[in-house]
Amino acid sequence: MAKAAHSMIRVLDEDRAVAFYRDALGLDRIDINRFDGFSLIYLSNAETGFEVELTVNDDRSEPYAHGDGYGHLAVVVDDLDAAHRRMTDLGYGPRDIKDFRKDGRPFARFFFVADPDGYQIEVIQKGGRFS
Amino acid sequence: MAKAAHSMIRVLDEDRAVAFYRDALGLDRIDINRFDGFSLIYLSNAETGFEVELTVNDDRSEPYAHGDGYGHLAVVVDDLDAAHRRMTDLGYGPRDIKDFRKDGRPFARFFFVADPDGYQIEVIQKGGRFS
Repeated sequence: MAKAAHSMIRVLDEDRAVAFYRDALGLDRIDINRFDGFSLIYLSNAETGFEVELTVNDDRSEPYAHGDGYGHLAVVVDDLDAAHRRMTDLGYGPRDIKDFRKDGRPFARFFFVADPDGYQIEVIQKGGRFS
Repeated sequence: MAKAAHSMIRVLDEDRAVAFYRDALGLDRIDINRFDGFSLIYLSNAETGFEVELTVNDDRSEPYAHGDGYGHLAVVVDDLDAAHRRMTDLGYGPRDIKDFRKDGRPFARFFFVADPDGYQIEVIQKGGRFS
């Protein structure tokens, strides 16, 4: 049986990406690994055993292409409204909060925000199946 | 502070994807949600609080484009060689096992395998920073 460990995304500017994940989501840089031509940066926090792995390729300068297959990384937070206000104040431009219902009942309350490289992050209010 | 909850990918064939994640990785279908035009399927197991969310869009028939930004989902396993043999026997064609070193010391022992929609999965031997 496999245990999910991390999700890897390629980013252009390490400091810009690290600032977003730290300030907007509370995911800290817990490990830095420099190799010949690239770095692997691991982000996590005490609430989750899962990590985000940032790959920074030293010779890359053009933005990465996102395709239409991969969707997003989702996180849950205790206070969705406070998270939305904080990301607004930080200038990250979160999209509007949505109430998504299934069969007339609440399914998820969430918003999306793009990280500096354009990866979508879904921020979900803790509760129900999202805990 | 945010807790990582799931990673969403769009897949064409629900049964084909569910079979891969179940048989190759031991991630079971724990929740099915049907909506008008699409379904959300959640996969997880007892070892991880993290989920894979499959989005199946009913009107989609052409393969999704992957771009070059998103990298992979990584999982750790207790026995990498056994996992590689099992995925080979299942016909999923895992790539060769690699020993990746940093400053002359072991960093990760792993292989990659593509899921039926072409998403890369990194399977890592448990140990060191991957636990």
